[in-house]
Amino acid sequence: MAKQAKQLGDLFEDLLKDIFYAEKKILTALPKMAKAAHSPDLKAAFEKHERETEGQVGRLEKVFDLLDQSPKGKKCEAIEGLVKEGQEGIKEFKGSPALDAALLATAQAVEHYEVARYGTLIAWANRLEMPQAAKLLQQTLDEEKKTDEALTELAESAINPEAQEAA
Amino acid sequence: MAKQAKQLGDLFEDLLKDIFYAEKKILTALPKMAKAAHSPDLKAAFEKHERETEGQVGRLEKVFDLLDQSPKGKKCEAIEGLVKEGQEGIKEFKGSPALDAALLATAQAVEHYEVARYGTLIAWANRLEMPQAAKLLQQTLDEEKKTDEALTELAESAINPEAQEAA
Repeated sequence: MAKQAKQLGDLFEDLLKDIFYAEKKILTALPKMAKAAHSPDLKAAFEKHERETEGQVGRLEKVFDLLDQSPKGKKCEAIEGLVKEGQEGIKEFKGSPALDAALLATAQAVEHYEVARYGTLIAWANRLEMPQAAKLLQQTLDEEKKTDEALTELAESAINPEAQEAA
Repeated sequence: MAKQAKQLGDLFEDLLKDIFYAEKKILTALPKMAKAAHSPDLKAAFEKHERETEGQVGRLEKVFDLLDQSPKGKKCEAIEGLVKEGQEGIKEFKGSPALDAALLATAQAVEHYEVARYGTLIAWANRLEMPQAAKLLQQTLDEEKKTDEALTELAESAINPEAQEAA
């Protein structure tokens, strides 16, 4: 049962597969979230992020390429949980003015998950002396942070007050 | 089957139960993470955060109190997934110098989850005109952000290089 101790390179690959799985899952969830959203601004934000996410999947494919590997996902339980909670929210708050607030909350939790994961991947890519990978991952991290900021602005402006006014 | 449309107050309660469940789950995971960590600094960080988390659970109990409700958790699939991934990491990287890097990555993903959730709860507490709740939640958010910064420092200093040197 002797087994070689796993190293940072293994961790990097594992997490790359995790986030690849997560991005693909998010790609299937975003159109549903855009369809469910009441606010045109929120709908537009989800549609914009869907296009961005396609680019992010493309960058991950390039990172796999730098590792001489085919892109492959590994089930990410955290994103499964978040997407499931989001879908339950759509069902539970259907027809309620609070639906958009629920969608926003899910989207921000997803963004934070990605920010954490890309931050970790960049730190590891640097340690592993993979500057090209680090650069690609940094581009995505910057996008995710901007998306989160845009969602926060929406949360502080149009979306949540509407939910409350109707309360 | 007529059902009153759910409102922002319902969302707030749901998310409060979600994060209450998550904090309790984290309380059970932190001692295992502290025990598994090689680096004394990382061990100390987890032990410190365990004490903080006890205080955070106490604050959530106060928020339930402000709502005239008994503290009650609601299964949070995202945190279940993160903790499960963390436990798998402990098993998989046992004996490897990369274990600490794996523990750190899990801890940062958990922190980001909490930052997202407390951020949302504070926005909603403000909309719902619950300044006392917002204040309590803000205290915890500030702690979570500090914890994440401390983990980032550890990730950039001692922990990850060790994992790589042994690679």
